[in-house]
Amino acid sequence: MTVTGYGTADPQTPLAPVQFERPDVRAGEVAIEVTHCGVCHSDVHQCHDDWGNTVWPCVPGHEVVGRVTSVGDGVTAFAEGDIVGVGCMVNSCQTCEPCKAGEEQYCTGPRGATLTYNGPTKPDGTNTYGGYSTDIVCREEFVLRIPDAIDPAEAAPILCAGVTTYAPLRQHKVGKDTRMAVAGVGGLGHMAIQIAKAMGAHVTALTTSPGKTDDIKALGADEVIVMSDIPALGKAQASFELILSTIPYAHDVEAYLNLVAHDGVLHFVGNFIPTTVAFMPMLFQRRTMTGSLIGGVEQTQEVLDFCAEHGIRPEIKTIAMDEINEAFRRVIDEDIRFRHVIDMDTLRKAEPSGATKLDAPVRGLPEDGGNAPEAAKS
Amino acid sequence: MTVTGYGTADPQTPLAPVQFERPDVRAGEVAIEVTHCGVCHSDVHQCHDDWGNTVWPCVPGHEVVGRVTSVGDGVTAFAEGDIVGVGCMVNSCQTCEPCKAGEEQYCTGPRGATLTYNGPTKPDGTNTYGGYSTDIVCREEFVLRIPDAIDPAEAAPILCAGVTTYAPLRQHKVGKDTRMAVAGVGGLGHMAIQIAKAMGAHVTALTTSPGKTDDIKALGADEVIVMSDIPALGKAQASFELILSTIPYAHDVEAYLNLVAHDGVLHFVGNFIPTTVAFMPMLFQRRTMTGSLIGGVEQTQEVLDFCAEHGIRPEIKTIAMDEINEAFRRVIDEDIRFRHVIDMDTLRKAEPSGATKLDAPVRGLPEDGGNAPEAAKS
Repeated sequence: MTVTGYGTADPQTPLAPVQFERPDVRAGEVAIEVTHCGVCHSDVHQCHDDWGNTVWPCVPGHEVVGRVTSVGDGVTAFAEGDIVGVGCMVNSCQTCEPCKAGEEQYCTGPRGATLTYNGPTKPDGTNTYGGYSTDIVCREEFVLRIPDAIDPAEAAPILCAGVTTYAPLRQHKVGKDTRMAVAGVGGLGHMAIQIAKAMGAHVTALTTSPGKTDDIKALGADEVIVMSDIPALGKAQASFELILSTIPYAHDVEAYLNLVAHDGVLHFVGNFIPTTVAFMPMLFQRRTMTGSLIGGVEQTQEVLDFCAEHGIRPEIKTIAMDEINEAFRRVIDEDIRFRHVIDMDTLRKAEPSGATKLDAPVRGLPEDGGNAPEAAKS
Repeated sequence: MTVTGYGTADPQTPLAPVQFERPDVRAGEVAIEVTHCGVCHSDVHQCHDDWGNTVWPCVPGHEVVGRVTSVGDGVTAFAEGDIVGVGCMVNSCQTCEPCKAGEEQYCTGPRGATLTYNGPTKPDGTNTYGGYSTDIVCREEFVLRIPDAIDPAEAAPILCAGVTTYAPLRQHKVGKDTRMAVAGVGGLGHMAIQIAKAMGAHVTALTTSPGKTDDIKALGADEVIVMSDIPALGKAQASFELILSTIPYAHDVEAYLNLVAHDGVLHFVGNFIPTTVAFMPMLFQRRTMTGSLIGGVEQTQEVLDFCAEHGIRPEIKTIAMDEINEAFRRVIDEDIRFRHVIDMDTLRKAEPSGATKLDAPVRGLPEDGGNAPEAAKS
């Protein structure tokens, strides 16, 4: 099918309309008409090549919600008309140890996980195009059920921001009275606060934005510490069993490390920028730094259901597709509360003329678990 | 008693003879005539103020072995003539949770642990002078028994290099067939290899010095990877459950992090220099970075006994006290295999003239668990 999207071919050029063919749905696949797509800080980093690993052209978007339009042979879990989601991955080898453990993001297959955009984890020149587009096609194992209780627009950010914070909270067994903090209250942080509260934790938010304090309290945070408040930092030294850091850029890690308790953990999600770290505060309190990458399909479904059950919703602002470059600027300026979600009907209705034609993307092949490039079969 | 030692009052001046009074032995204390003192890389860092926390003047030395010359009231565990050791600490509050858990190095008392030199962990202007001296006095709880099987000169490095590597190996439950690596084969690393082998691990040594390969194999390492050997690094990607890094300076952490297995650990000991780290390889494999500080008294005794039982000995080169500045240079140049140990009789016999007079050091007071400065009682 011919798909319209928004993408860019280099870090300097703003996103603009593109057009490409997505090969028709095959056995085991689900075709989805995209209704909403969340705008993740990763989309910005990737389009600006901040991580130095962008595969061009880049059509971002991995918080995808839509309506099933058709299913391939053998698909029984989904049917036309279902409201479904696609998160950060569309395929993986499905046979390696991490895949079997439901952690497809760490797939050790020959190409690793096939990310929803920016190609497979192990780049070989093939590319994938994400949810900034009218339609997407995905292996059924990577399609999520959107609970009825959650508005499709609000479901979108749960698919990345939600599971990326949910997975480490489960990993570190956050529960009743865990004394923890969330560093950075943007798209990921504002989900982390709500999820951790629903798990029973005592949650302190660490922010650099004094102006966000009231909004953060409204999310349920027990306490808010502004990182410029030296007395508050002094009082909080070595006090948190866990700090979940959602800060997506280089920053003064030591300031946060000092707040971690003896034998405690500073867990990073989303921070891929090389950062200078003083190890001394780590060694002197036997603290740990660790990090993780999104979450597996099983946990993505789990967090959707968890949010439905606990009434957790991302705070969103719906935008039209052609407002995306302005949204990127606001993400960079931290001028948002808290997540942009693109209403994809605005793209469908716009029928932009002069769209750049792109080569067809890959999405892995059903026959080989997604580990051969599409071109090899065409 | 009047004590002669070697120290310096600033980072630029080489170590030279000093003289000071150590207040006489009090209740619960043990006076020790120092026979040997190991030269630790920390001694060099501290004298050069590489960590920015040196309390001047600095008389280093925390791998101290000697003969008991007298004991204070109430001391029953030690008697005149015993061969004993003093490691990195001479006192702590002995009442806080870490102290009660045998981890005095993490003492949360008002002054923290009182380090053997460079004062208490929480500096308040008071200072301690270490084992580069003819005599030392220490709380009995911090005195170690040197097993008969171990030569006193060889025992010295076990008190810091030994326990600093033994503690994390125990922490991470290294045992039969643990696939691990030791990064950096100097004073700490060469002990770590031997100890990990005795615990049953499969040990790979990671070194930047191709010339050390044969010596490292002789220590028992199963494999040696030279960090400039790109094919070997490629083969070892993501293969070690644990890497114990003993590298004491800023370095390319990513090169080591990439060798850690999924969910594995890169554990630093002794690296206090701020270092730039790319978090991406940590997040992409959910790896952990952590670190620790020396070891507690109980584990220091444990590693002495473990080394006696398993025939583990540090490789040492005995030097005279007045060779110390040359030894420092060789430590910096990594021109050693593997640990210098000062024969303290060379200082006792030299009776250096023109020694700089220093104020008396503190060593904590028995009455308050070592948390008041000596001056307050004199």
